[in-house]
Amino acid sequence: MAGKKIELLKKLAALIRYYILVSTTEAGSGHPSSSLSATELMACLLFGGVFRFDIDHPKRPNNDRLIFSKGHASPLFYALWAAAGEVSESELMTYRKFGSPLEGHPSIAFPYTEAATGSLGQGLSIGVGMALNAKYIDRLPYRTYVLLGDSEMAEGSQWESMQIAAHYRLNNLVGILDVNRLGQRGETMYGWDLEAYRKRISSFGWKTILVDGHSIPEIHAAYRQAVKVADQPVMMIARTIKGKGVSFIEDKDGWHGKALKKEECERALQELGEIDKSLRGDIALPQDLVPKEPISLQPPKKVDYPMDKPVATRKAYGNGLIRIFPQFPNIVSLDGEVSNSTYAEIFKEAHPDRFFEMYIAEQNMVGAALGFSIRGKIPFVSTFAAFFTRAFDQIRMSQYSDPNIKFIGSHAGVSIGEDGPSQMGLEDIAMFRAILDSVVLYPCDAVSTEKLVEEAAKHHGMVYLRTTRKETPILYRPEENFTIGGSKVLRESEKDRATVIGAGITVHEALGAYEILKKESVPIRVIDLYSIKPMDEKTLRQVASATRSIVTVEDHYGEGGIGEAVKGVLAGSPAVVHSLCVKKKPKSGKPDELLDYEEISRNAIAEKVKQLI
Amino acid sequence: MAGKKIELLKKLAALIRYYILVSTTEAGSGHPSSSLSATELMACLLFGGVFRFDIDHPKRPNNDRLIFSKGHASPLFYALWAAAGEVSESELMTYRKFGSPLEGHPSIAFPYTEAATGSLGQGLSIGVGMALNAKYIDRLPYRTYVLLGDSEMAEGSQWESMQIAAHYRLNNLVGILDVNRLGQRGETMYGWDLEAYRKRISSFGWKTILVDGHSIPEIHAAYRQAVKVADQPVMMIARTIKGKGVSFIEDKDGWHGKALKKEECERALQELGEIDKSLRGDIALPQDLVPKEPISLQPPKKVDYPMDKPVATRKAYGNGLIRIFPQFPNIVSLDGEVSNSTYAEIFKEAHPDRFFEMYIAEQNMVGAALGFSIRGKIPFVSTFAAFFTRAFDQIRMSQYSDPNIKFIGSHAGVSIGEDGPSQMGLEDIAMFRAILDSVVLYPCDAVSTEKLVEEAAKHHGMVYLRTTRKETPILYRPEENFTIGGSKVLRESEKDRATVIGAGITVHEALGAYEILKKESVPIRVIDLYSIKPMDEKTLRQVASATRSIVTVEDHYGEGGIGEAVKGVLAGSPAVVHSLCVKKKPKSGKPDELLDYEEISRNAIAEKVKQLI
Repeated sequence: MAGKKIELLKKLAALIRYYILVSTTEAGSGHPSSSLSATELMACLLFGGVFRFDIDHPKRPNNDRLIFSKGHASPLFYALWAAAGEVSESELMTYRKFGSPLEGHPSIAFPYTEAATGSLGQGLSIGVGMALNAKYIDRLPYRTYVLLGDSEMAEGSQWESMQIAAHYRLNNLVGILDVNRLGQRGETMYGWDLEAYRKRISSFGWKTILVDGHSIPEIHAAYRQAVKVADQPVMMIARTIKGKGVSFIEDKDGWHGKALKKEECERALQELGEIDKSLRGDIALPQDLVPKEPISLQPPKKVDYPMDKPVATRKAYGNGLIRIFPQFPNIVSLDGEVSNSTYAEIFKEAHPDRFFEMYIAEQNMVGAALGFSIRGKIPFVSTFAAFFTRAFDQIRMSQYSDPNIKFIGSHAGVSIGEDGPSQMGLEDIAMFRAILDSVVLYPCDAVSTEKLVEEAAKHHGMVYLRTTRKETPILYRPEENFTIGGSKVLRESEKDRATVIGAGITVHEALGAYEILKKESVPIRVIDLYSIKPMDEKTLRQVASATRSIVTVEDHYGEGGIGEAVKGVLAGSPAVVHSLCVKKKPKSGKPDELLDYEEISRNAIAEKVKQLI
Repeated sequence: MAGKKIELLKKLAALIRYYILVSTTEAGSGHPSSSLSATELMACLLFGGVFRFDIDHPKRPNNDRLIFSKGHASPLFYALWAAAGEVSESELMTYRKFGSPLEGHPSIAFPYTEAATGSLGQGLSIGVGMALNAKYIDRLPYRTYVLLGDSEMAEGSQWESMQIAAHYRLNNLVGILDVNRLGQRGETMYGWDLEAYRKRISSFGWKTILVDGHSIPEIHAAYRQAVKVADQPVMMIARTIKGKGVSFIEDKDGWHGKALKKEECERALQELGEIDKSLRGDIALPQDLVPKEPISLQPPKKVDYPMDKPVATRKAYGNGLIRIFPQFPNIVSLDGEVSNSTYAEIFKEAHPDRFFEMYIAEQNMVGAALGFSIRGKIPFVSTFAAFFTRAFDQIRMSQYSDPNIKFIGSHAGVSIGEDGPSQMGLEDIAMFRAILDSVVLYPCDAVSTEKLVEEAAKHHGMVYLRTTRKETPILYRPEENFTIGGSKVLRESEKDRATVIGAGITVHEALGAYEILKKESVPIRVIDLYSIKPMDEKTLRQVASATRSIVTVEDHYGEGGIGEAVKGVLAGSPAVVHSLCVKKKPKSGKPDELLDYEEISRNAIAEKVKQLI
């Protein structure tokens, strides 16, 4: 590397340090010490000619991608873009202030943020998604770089990402591990033992390169090496000093997440020496490439199920996905090693190049789905409903990155039967409902499942679709329409004495209760509440005024479930809403035995209606 | 190993295979192939003289522990205890039937199940908790054995457990990895590449021993070696054949989770040869040791906070924990590398031998807490409220193991301020409420926090206590009592025109609204709903009949939160309940700015009350 370039990068690093210090001191909070340790690593990446990014067009498909998995180093992140000329010093001074795009942890309010981070151990999986997209879908040569902290290597999610990245030979994925020795409350598990990281990471199939994280020539050489590795992801493991450049906080405990006071900041700035504030770093341009255009869009075929043959909604999901693919060629399917249960295998067999086996590693699967989503794909992610709880933090975080992800949870509720509670999704509706702007769907038959899979694909956002293990009768004709926020009134008369609201498997129980009660001359209304969020408030209010007694019935625990949601919508209405839901610790047994045991079966519904009226 | 003993173990293995086959065929479902692969591994462990367990006293403190992390191998698990004489063949025939303690995945209905399993990748962390307990708390020589599947090694949680076990030098923890090559839907990531596992596992600091998993002498020698390792956990990595012993399913895809049909079972039994059904295996007895008795119980000191000095409830948590420790000497504290934020550090400093740094690895932390709980300790587990979402699957699964775990989530809600949404717990109440029989507490001041920490310790079960980052005024005198299921009426008059229900930080906003409205001559009632689950239904019903307008206000998303819970309780009451909650994507800013932005501040409450009345 030429001496002149080294000098330039040193000056840029000093300028970046200046920005880090003044912005955090002005904010009165933030993580300067964690930013200072990675300054050379990032300055070299962006301004050393390795990173290729069209700064005027951040969304350009062949731009390299940079994710700050250690999101608390946001002062460095913003300072980088300031050094690139995209953020002014006065804008930096709004850091962490209300309304500023420069939030405490990178958010998508800032145009160069690929994905919101801040919950540790998630950036690498998002990077895996982007790198999978580049290598296998878009077939573009862009690279994805992920800045990682040493503390976050304790998260299991990192090792999920690591194994999958190696499995898929993601040589377009580069991790930069900032080993600054200190976590929030003291030394990390391995301190400066770089060898401990090297052993672990290389055993997972990655190429590792050890560097002095403050030596610009070493770092530069490492990047040059990293981009030449043919069939492995690369981890640059850098020994760094937390607080580097400010002698009185360097490698000192007690300086995590702490801004310098004004006078401390002044002392620190003096140590930096002269700063050339007019300096700007150049970022290399990428090749002007775009992904292969998707084939011409085709309308999906018609849904077609004979009315007399029950089909499991999980199977209808797989059918639906291949049916709509011609209309949505950006669909990719990710599954957690259960594709023969979720029926993602139907899609896998039809489009093996668009299916990604993510093994039993749900956290990385969801993070990777976010990476695909950010790169313009529509990921359909499937596993058992229960096992999405494994990735709740990733699901939670994805809501802050404008996600377009479809989650398909099979084997919901006690109706799965003999396998017992470990495999039963009983908190999944509560979990997905709790996410801002999420959509939660729960179809009861194959036709509505296929239609709702289509609606899910059309809707930009996070959608959860819950499927059922066992076969259920076909209730709807192929021409029936289903909308997000809709519901269906399945049985209705002017004499209805109560309304039973079900969704998924319990719709069939509600219809069973209708038959039982009909024999006893007790007419009831039956609603298929297939859209749990948003909810069809209008119809619910109508039935609440038509029949004063309402019974909700769901194969899910009570809290955060359908009953509570309905009660929420009907609060203040004089209707009496009684919620039947799973209230006892479930066990193994036949589906019908368990529905009876939990008092969510047709018999229990009929009984409850008779009590209420 | 003597030939006679080998012969005995072979016969026992054949008997166990017989039990596996007949019980699953009778059930018509289950996982015989995954059970057959580990038969020799487990037969040798239990009946080879290594495992020490008093079969008549399963709860004996110095018994070795056995956890089936691959819970789907339950047919093997029950067959082992049948071979030990504790389960009859006719009982085995109830496998997976409703009401049988022999559930599809091991549940605590069966007396030899240490912890319910079935969601993969969790057994090792439970084992870590038990081994930490043995080595550092009870100081007993018992060992913990965990049977692991190869598919589940893809779960990140495994690597969290692995690193922590090595960090704490748990030489009393032995993993047995059943590498049968096949997952649910095909080959695992590494197939029979035992070296891939060895490299990874040994790089994480474990002693590894490779064996042929069907060779009794090899397995036996490996166990003898495992129990002699001085300062490392040990992983026995066994090459096995899925379906071993039944030629037509051996190493065949498509036989996961599938019982043999009657005629197939008969063919399989013929292959096993003669079975000695009268044979019973002996399990060695452990030394009769008990843990050091806890020191004599002392009543806790009085709570003491000056009324005029605000204190953060997270700090009161730390204070409370050391205050009650003399009364609850079984308390242990686990923290996810944020003890200086959660204030678990107060306990750590007072009782370093009872504090466990679990690093940023929340899944293993929660699993380990369950291990401690099962061994009779009272784990208090702390991290940011938001980061418990990382361990939702572990939290979910723990509900099936009679957990006595206290979760303390700090930094709840938008009121944390500048750090932004990644650090804000906004779904935590929904998550913990969704668990069966959970308790959810949310105190608003230091006094109530300390009292509720005490109540949490007294209550056997899962308790979630939510704390607040910023300092809040002291509202209660030290003699005030707080109970699970209680609430406090803080402002009340006969002329109240509305009731405002808050919890935690919003109690202070509600009191602020009271003052604003007082000036406008609008008296309101103010409730501190510190017990969110169970909820004080009686008081809520009373206020609903006293004031028709109710405003709930919470620093949490709407779904599954306090507002929905209150509406659920008051369904059918004519009271109009309006829920103020976090409805917009949060950002960075000052706490008060964010409370205003989300319309959960005193001003927003006063405004809403005026609209309603």
